[in-house]
Amino acid sequence: MGGDHGPPVVVGGVRDYRKRDGGEGVRFLLHGDETALRVELTKAGLGDDVCQIRHTDKVVAMTEKPAAAMRRGKGSSLWNAIEAVKTGEAAAVVSAGNTGALMAISKLILRMSAHGLERPAIVASWPTLRGVTAVLDVGANIESDAEQLVEFAIMGEAFHQAVHGVERPTIGLLNVGSEDMKGHEEVREAARILREGGFGLDYRGFVEGTDIAKGTVDVVVTDGFTGNIALKTAEGVARFISALLKEALTSGPLAKAGALLALPALRRMQQRIDPSAINGGPLLGLNGIVVKSHGGADARGFGNAIRIAVELARSDYLAKVGHSLNRLTAVLEQPSASPPDPAKETSQ
Amino acid sequence: MGGDHGPPVVVGGVRDYRKRDGGEGVRFLLHGDETALRVELTKAGLGDDVCQIRHTDKVVAMTEKPAAAMRRGKGSSLWNAIEAVKTGEAAAVVSAGNTGALMAISKLILRMSAHGLERPAIVASWPTLRGVTAVLDVGANIESDAEQLVEFAIMGEAFHQAVHGVERPTIGLLNVGSEDMKGHEEVREAARILREGGFGLDYRGFVEGTDIAKGTVDVVVTDGFTGNIALKTAEGVARFISALLKEALTSGPLAKAGALLALPALRRMQQRIDPSAINGGPLLGLNGIVVKSHGGADARGFGNAIRIAVELARSDYLAKVGHSLNRLTAVLEQPSASPPDPAKETSQ
Repeated sequence: MGGDHGPPVVVGGVRDYRKRDGGEGVRFLLHGDETALRVELTKAGLGDDVCQIRHTDKVVAMTEKPAAAMRRGKGSSLWNAIEAVKTGEAAAVVSAGNTGALMAISKLILRMSAHGLERPAIVASWPTLRGVTAVLDVGANIESDAEQLVEFAIMGEAFHQAVHGVERPTIGLLNVGSEDMKGHEEVREAARILREGGFGLDYRGFVEGTDIAKGTVDVVVTDGFTGNIALKTAEGVARFISALLKEALTSGPLAKAGALLALPALRRMQQRIDPSAINGGPLLGLNGIVVKSHGGADARGFGNAIRIAVELARSDYLAKVGHSLNRLTAVLEQPSASPPDPAKETSQ
Repeated sequence: MGGDHGPPVVVGGVRDYRKRDGGEGVRFLLHGDETALRVELTKAGLGDDVCQIRHTDKVVAMTEKPAAAMRRGKGSSLWNAIEAVKTGEAAAVVSAGNTGALMAISKLILRMSAHGLERPAIVASWPTLRGVTAVLDVGANIESDAEQLVEFAIMGEAFHQAVHGVERPTIGLLNVGSEDMKGHEEVREAARILREGGFGLDYRGFVEGTDIAKGTVDVVVTDGFTGNIALKTAEGVARFISALLKEALTSGPLAKAGALLALPALRRMQQRIDPSAINGGPLLGLNGIVVKSHGGADARGFGNAIRIAVELARSDYLAKVGHSLNRLTAVLEQPSASPPDPAKETSQ
């Protein structure tokens, strides 16, 4: 029921996913208003063998605060969809709904698997000159210590492997320079753990802001504050340049004629930075697979979020991450590797 | 002598500045190799009434580490140029040389005027839909506490006023959301001081990454880590989109013909994001005016850095900032406004 468009985009997304990816063996539980969903399923020609409806007339509004959604959300379509992952009835949940509520209720029902995390980490799939780079956290872990940054690296690597099929993704830590002594303590300590921890990651050291769009590494790790600002700054710059380009190409008859001739090429270019093609940000660090679709996504975008959820569910992502996080805990508990921190000892 | 091109761009910059801005009453001291400089001055037709040479054959290399430059730099062109500001012989210094050395030697000779700062703050002039926004710090103050962020706001406002002629620049604090409770403690505390401190700033609250290129506010304040990453990320995205556009417009005969027709319009667009037009990043927080030109800048870019230095020197920038920083110290010393911090009390 979530997102700006509700059932038409969700059901349209199922149809689009099946058209593009086949979707062999993938079945869907649609949580929400039966009547509204039935209409869309009939339109889309999807039968009970593919989609089953789990009726509820309760929904979490897009504007509801996370705390309120946690208190009042039980029995809503969002809640039930996450609950189905917990009970094992579903292998993954995809939602275009309220992000804060999705994070809070997922955390409540599924629990975090990475103990350093306060909240799930969100991955952005960033189009680059070399393909796609995963950037995390772009979400809500505002202050990330070295342990969290290493958790992001572990989860980001497993995500990129599962979804983008790269056998051994390369990892970089986002910093203000590439020299060892650059940056604040957290990022330098994370670099040390990644170099010495033996997690089997292909860690390539520090990368800078310009390296993201260059595609220097497959996975860029940063704290949620910096990651969120980098992502939104990039969105702003992309929109700014698009606006300038549009203005330039409609600024006179010659420019307009030129734009008309170049249109097919410009359209192909636009597809490479089309948000639909990269829509779907998994919330990592939970005991279960949860994928957030952009609220404004179209059917193709929602279909892409489904594809990401399916690929994560079919991979050994959760097992692999669980194994590496255990290894991280062991490394951090070795007093020789890292000075003991009383606060951390208690929370473990 | 600094930058990738040395004297030709520096002398060319003087000439370009005078051509564009008149430069009435502005005279230049050129520090460096007399022979090399004389050749360029003759070529540019600049006489002793405009440019005087201060010979030295010692230079700080572009690759020299700041600490080494501080130890060994005395008597170099960079050192002497900054020294001339200290003695009052020059009103400002402009350099395309080694950034780290410029920062370190400026700090050593001129001293910081903002006591919370470890290093000078660097301002980026960011092209936006509404004109230019000043973003600071994009430099080397890695971890900025609330006091430093407020100092950036004070200095950024005075800079924008002096250089961009905006009478009452609007200020925003860069954050992951616009609600009061968003972000880490430093940014929330800075917001409180800016709201309550009575600095006469037009503080507009939190802004997000997308707001930078939108031009939502005139001055965007952030810590040097986030600011540096935002700036470099934006550069990466701009280059990425340019590369895609170039590829698209040369992808076939039709696209090429279209590009040819639209060329004048595309050139005008490019001018709006031309780095030369916005080159020149002052190092703020020093007892003196120091402007860094990009090492790779051309004569037009260096000319723009000169323009910024002249406008700062002719304004009441230093007096205004000094007054506001004193007011900040007073506010922070009031135990009622902010809980006393023993570490801070000692350093004051």
